[in-house]
Amino acid sequence: MAQLRRDPVVGFWVVVAEESVGHPLPRLSNGRGQTPEHCPLCEGHEAFTPPEISAYGRRGQPNGPGWSVRVVPNTAPALMPTPADVDRRGIGMFDVMNGIGAHEVVVETPRHDQEMADLSPLQANVVLQAFRDRITDLHRDHRLHYVMVCKNRGPFAGARLSHAHSQIIALATIPPRVKDKLRGTRSYYELKERCVYCDMLAQELADGARVVYQNSHVAVLCPFASRFPFELLVMPKLHNCSFDSISVAEQADVAVGLVEAARAVRNALNDPDYNLVLHTSPNPVPHPGYWRTIERDFHWHMEFIPRIFSIAGFEWGTGCYINPTPPESAAAYLRRRRIEWSGDSTPTTALTGPSATGFST
Amino acid sequence: MAQLRRDPVVGFWVVVAEESVGHPLPRLSNGRGQTPEHCPLCEGHEAFTPPEISAYGRRGQPNGPGWSVRVVPNTAPALMPTPADVDRRGIGMFDVMNGIGAHEVVVETPRHDQEMADLSPLQANVVLQAFRDRITDLHRDHRLHYVMVCKNRGPFAGARLSHAHSQIIALATIPPRVKDKLRGTRSYYELKERCVYCDMLAQELADGARVVYQNSHVAVLCPFASRFPFELLVMPKLHNCSFDSISVAEQADVAVGLVEAARAVRNALNDPDYNLVLHTSPNPVPHPGYWRTIERDFHWHMEFIPRIFSIAGFEWGTGCYINPTPPESAAAYLRRRRIEWSGDSTPTTALTGPSATGFST
Repeated sequence: MAQLRRDPVVGFWVVVAEESVGHPLPRLSNGRGQTPEHCPLCEGHEAFTPPEISAYGRRGQPNGPGWSVRVVPNTAPALMPTPADVDRRGIGMFDVMNGIGAHEVVVETPRHDQEMADLSPLQANVVLQAFRDRITDLHRDHRLHYVMVCKNRGPFAGARLSHAHSQIIALATIPPRVKDKLRGTRSYYELKERCVYCDMLAQELADGARVVYQNSHVAVLCPFASRFPFELLVMPKLHNCSFDSISVAEQADVAVGLVEAARAVRNALNDPDYNLVLHTSPNPVPHPGYWRTIERDFHWHMEFIPRIFSIAGFEWGTGCYINPTPPESAAAYLRRRRIEWSGDSTPTTALTGPSATGFST
Repeated sequence: MAQLRRDPVVGFWVVVAEESVGHPLPRLSNGRGQTPEHCPLCEGHEAFTPPEISAYGRRGQPNGPGWSVRVVPNTAPALMPTPADVDRRGIGMFDVMNGIGAHEVVVETPRHDQEMADLSPLQANVVLQAFRDRITDLHRDHRLHYVMVCKNRGPFAGARLSHAHSQIIALATIPPRVKDKLRGTRSYYELKERCVYCDMLAQELADGARVVYQNSHVAVLCPFASRFPFELLVMPKLHNCSFDSISVAEQADVAVGLVEAARAVRNALNDPDYNLVLHTSPNPVPHPGYWRTIERDFHWHMEFIPRIFSIAGFEWGTGCYINPTPPESAAAYLRRRRIEWSGDSTPTTALTGPSATGFST
């Protein structure tokens, strides 16, 4: 089992592998261009994965073909739901805990040739249902404090497999970036008695310059303080801290918004690698009092980060960012391209223009 | 001038370019393989950069050939030391400030074919002297609160130019990652009445498993909670919050440690891209009271991050990390390889071994 180690200064946790055998250099990702013959996530290859946790649209036997979305444990999990207590202890001044948690894979489609941008709204909705069901189920394990849902597309985004999939990682701690967001939303609420995300959304919709797409329940926008060129925020219009408690109608609209975001980025930016992260509330059970303020302060959302730009020393060292593409320009470009392709999801030709600015790093 | 925009929830600042003209897609880095003929940082090409801020080992006229280390303003600066006040204002609920600051380039060698790992200890010492002098000078500008020194090597690390260089970026704010470290060191001091870095160093040197190199004044080690495979910490043995006030003897030893770190990584990992970040105290002048506790709590250091592994959605979403290479394995491997090459700095052949573990992301 992996060990979690706490940074003694800043306090983040690192999931560190067990003592490695053989060569210590990690295998580099090559998460593109794998052929379906060797893909463990393709329909018909169910035997390549551990037995499924759940499957949607199942026709036929479990762990056989005939499904639209499938959830399986990660074959090489970083964390495991072993029936043991969370064991926190010290090694001298350092802090460690055992790797209790969960690490699962949501296979988003049986087809190897489909990406999130290709999914029908109905299929994307089933993927969201799988996210919700896993969050709900993992919250039943009171040892776990946070369920992270994320997606890595392509090698620059950290993916190993090219078949469209997301990941569910459950942790026995509330991670620091989640705490930062909870702290920020609480400070704002205490000052204003309003949700910071609701305020942001109201200003963005009134302004319009950074909005790429919207429907009844969701807006897709380039955030005012975008860290990266063409970063997108998928923002629900209704205040709700937890993704797993949204309504059926809202979920359907989120599915449409998510596919629109994926298409916008793919078509406008020549199919870049990207990360998708769902930010939702922590497991309420271990934190009932805390959770009551989270309900009031926090507002779930998704971040969509095209990986067309490298993180450099400045970003590592400061936690600030240099973004050469103003989000207003990015949003205008995405809106314009969205009209051009008008429903056609074929990737456009490669874009090789001059730099937006000359920031030299 | 660029605009700084504050994230309304977490509070980090983003340096956003001015409204872009033309194509909004940023030019991708290609910071390797440029030929000396077109390199703006090579000796003899001084006219390609703005007039120098300073030069070391100068023989001949300023802005001509004959120097060993040269400091110039960035040709396309993210921030500028324009003689204006820092102008903080709101745009509705959002917070912005003007791009007052500095963005400079330290050219580490006149030669195009040298990397940090090739520098003599003497030459590396001159680079450190340039860092110190720029920090000292920029601290005279009381509008500036923090001077970040960092290095991007290769395109994955965000570099545009292949000629060995570092960057100096001065900001009119203390950035969040620096604040996190200052907060963490203060909490530890308040609990223990000791410096957390001094304690960490004492435990690491007593244990030895994660130490790669040491001399009288500096230790190079793989931190206990390493976020990335083969991450290195260059840690001074003497408690001191500010890099710009170290002694001459200490600086010489740091130069040796830094070159050892660069060589270890290059030789053992087949010349990977990397980032180097110097963490030192903020500008004391705008924060005299705060600074007195920083002197007591904080301990300057350098982080050396080989970019052989992608940041994935989990890291973006949580601020936690998954590291498939235990730092003990990494340190043992670097020590072993260091003995093998025993002073020979020729890069070894490519290493393509199996994964340290099978973490699949």
